[in-house]
Amino acid sequence: MRNVYVAGIGQTTFGKTPDRSIEQMGQTAVRAALADAGIAKSDIQAAYCANVLGGMLTGQRVLRDLGMTGMPIKNIENACSSGSVAVQDGAAAIASGQADTVIVFGVEKLSVLGGGTLPLEDTDIEVAQGQVMPAVYAMRARRYMHEYGATEDDLVKVAVKARGNGALNPIAQFRKAVTADEVRASRMVADPLRLFMCCPTGDGAAAVVLTADKALAQRSDATVRVASTALQSGLYKTGFRIMSSAELTERTARIAYEQAGVSAQDVGICELHDAFAIAELMYYEALGLCEAGGGMALVRDGETTLQGRIPVNPSGGLLSRGHALGATGIAQLIEIVTQMRGAAGARQVARLPRVGVTHCTGGGISGLDHGACAVTVLEATE
Amino acid sequence: MRNVYVAGIGQTTFGKTPDRSIEQMGQTAVRAALADAGIAKSDIQAAYCANVLGGMLTGQRVLRDLGMTGMPIKNIENACSSGSVAVQDGAAAIASGQADTVIVFGVEKLSVLGGGTLPLEDTDIEVAQGQVMPAVYAMRARRYMHEYGATEDDLVKVAVKARGNGALNPIAQFRKAVTADEVRASRMVADPLRLFMCCPTGDGAAAVVLTADKALAQRSDATVRVASTALQSGLYKTGFRIMSSAELTERTARIAYEQAGVSAQDVGICELHDAFAIAELMYYEALGLCEAGGGMALVRDGETTLQGRIPVNPSGGLLSRGHALGATGIAQLIEIVTQMRGAAGARQVARLPRVGVTHCTGGGISGLDHGACAVTVLEATE
Repeated sequence: MRNVYVAGIGQTTFGKTPDRSIEQMGQTAVRAALADAGIAKSDIQAAYCANVLGGMLTGQRVLRDLGMTGMPIKNIENACSSGSVAVQDGAAAIASGQADTVIVFGVEKLSVLGGGTLPLEDTDIEVAQGQVMPAVYAMRARRYMHEYGATEDDLVKVAVKARGNGALNPIAQFRKAVTADEVRASRMVADPLRLFMCCPTGDGAAAVVLTADKALAQRSDATVRVASTALQSGLYKTGFRIMSSAELTERTARIAYEQAGVSAQDVGICELHDAFAIAELMYYEALGLCEAGGGMALVRDGETTLQGRIPVNPSGGLLSRGHALGATGIAQLIEIVTQMRGAAGARQVARLPRVGVTHCTGGGISGLDHGACAVTVLEATE
Repeated sequence: MRNVYVAGIGQTTFGKTPDRSIEQMGQTAVRAALADAGIAKSDIQAAYCANVLGGMLTGQRVLRDLGMTGMPIKNIENACSSGSVAVQDGAAAIASGQADTVIVFGVEKLSVLGGGTLPLEDTDIEVAQGQVMPAVYAMRARRYMHEYGATEDDLVKVAVKARGNGALNPIAQFRKAVTADEVRASRMVADPLRLFMCCPTGDGAAAVVLTADKALAQRSDATVRVASTALQSGLYKTGFRIMSSAELTERTARIAYEQAGVSAQDVGICELHDAFAIAELMYYEALGLCEAGGGMALVRDGETTLQGRIPVNPSGGLLSRGHALGATGIAQLIEIVTQMRGAAGARQVARLPRVGVTHCTGGGISGLDHGACAVTVLEATE
């Protein structure tokens, strides 16, 4: 298997922008990634498009007017993990020698939904009872607070960190820092989760050029390699379930770390799936950044801020950069690459990271056990 | 790269069945494929689901209630070629050693659309002018008739053959043979294409177990190997285009044949994308089964009947078995495997084929240049 490098990155701003079409957003991101890689569109040998709700042949519709046709184009749907799964597909094509240079992009336009939580299948018995995403994460938060003594203030701190990072990210959906008081004053969505503790829906696109050609990916600060990509699905248990931990993320991360030959202790930067503030604490633990119940301490001690030991969600995360489903996993990867290159400007983390992780998870029975979780390990090489 | 074998096949009946859910149809097909392979669900290491219009996480929704969870599950959308692209993904996972045994399935429920042609993007300038699928294929038919002297009778013969084969296929949407007079008497849809010359929309599911374990795939008549899978997209030209040939199918077939190390002359059986009767003639030529303009002669001479030299669409094809988008490419593969195994009963072809081809193409600007075309080569080994 060959090494897979990230040669180019590009993304649109995230936000509710009904005037931008899926095609326009996708094209903006793809063009930016090609420009960053310094290659022509004719250098691309295959394309992988992540999209959830955009309809038939989204990838082809984006690429058609760019004249990027006559090659394999695939569309991948895996709920919140779609973007990371498209990265996995593109990386596999390069690793196995099917292609030398490919484009992977994700695009979503959620503003068409008119707001609110994502549409879930009401054939699901728990969803039909009202267990939509905010309700489920609220239950998880209450249980987590009960078990580990976390307080509302810990959730507030996560939201303040996310908005602070987002304020420094020119593509973020929310580009204004908020105070703890503002978070506490935001309206209750599902107790204890207030509005600023819940990620927004939005529109956006993100694209990366992956290549076997190391020279193409070379940058002065870092040449970034996709060290591993893991995809798993939940066990979909019904009845009693442990709500304060995330078995699926634990399992997926274990596979990703093993394939990359790294351990959780090596991780120097992380973009994780903070769909709700409580998720950040739980996924710190599931990704092995700390022990079970140790998530609060990381936040209280500022370990996951831009200046901390393991910066988490420097982009602002889902809570602040935003969550345009198909684009999210790729936007996470772009943030890690940008930080590894030392090119993140005002939000540049204190120490250039060598190993970074992206994490997406979502879709499924009441959010308790997800349909798809993807963990990608990135490595800065010379 | 390792060899990939077909260990099990299973499908539902095709047809308009609003009472069957996507989950039920998918589960029926998956269960049947596992039973045919003689393996337990726990032997499956990854799943690939093809679906176009069924919504988020279709694959996970199908597999959840079967207890087939906790593994990688991916959803693939590529319009009419979705099923074949899922086969490509599953085969690649096995060939590269990522998994030993996987399930690939496709499912679609088009009856929710209430009939008529497929929904196309009306942002497409030609679609907006009325160039929906039947209109485009009618134009192609008129041009083909003009260039090569084909007559309405040639199109009638294709429809009669399809319905005759479908009458012998217990899972076909149309299970009644029709006479030439009945085809001629069916109502005009888009001149010269009459109703019986247009494929129906419908519901259905199809599943295959792919494996690296040759012994698992061994059958008395044939052990079937996936020799190659090719995916390409159209060039998406606008303005003047040649309507009587199919560049995309030609290109995709060339790649598939080369990768499999076979030539068009080796092909002994074929399931091709006869969305409309004219398509069968054009795709004979594009797949290399005859020269340009030679399609009529194949039909007139009966070369592509069950008793002919190269049986085409023994299942009844899209025109008679039906076209449940995501399921179609996999149903095509199942027909070839069934014929290679000598297990096709009343519709068994006269000579056991050694090399078979499946072909799907669809989606895109007015159908003149498709978004995705997939050709799979299957080989019967000892």
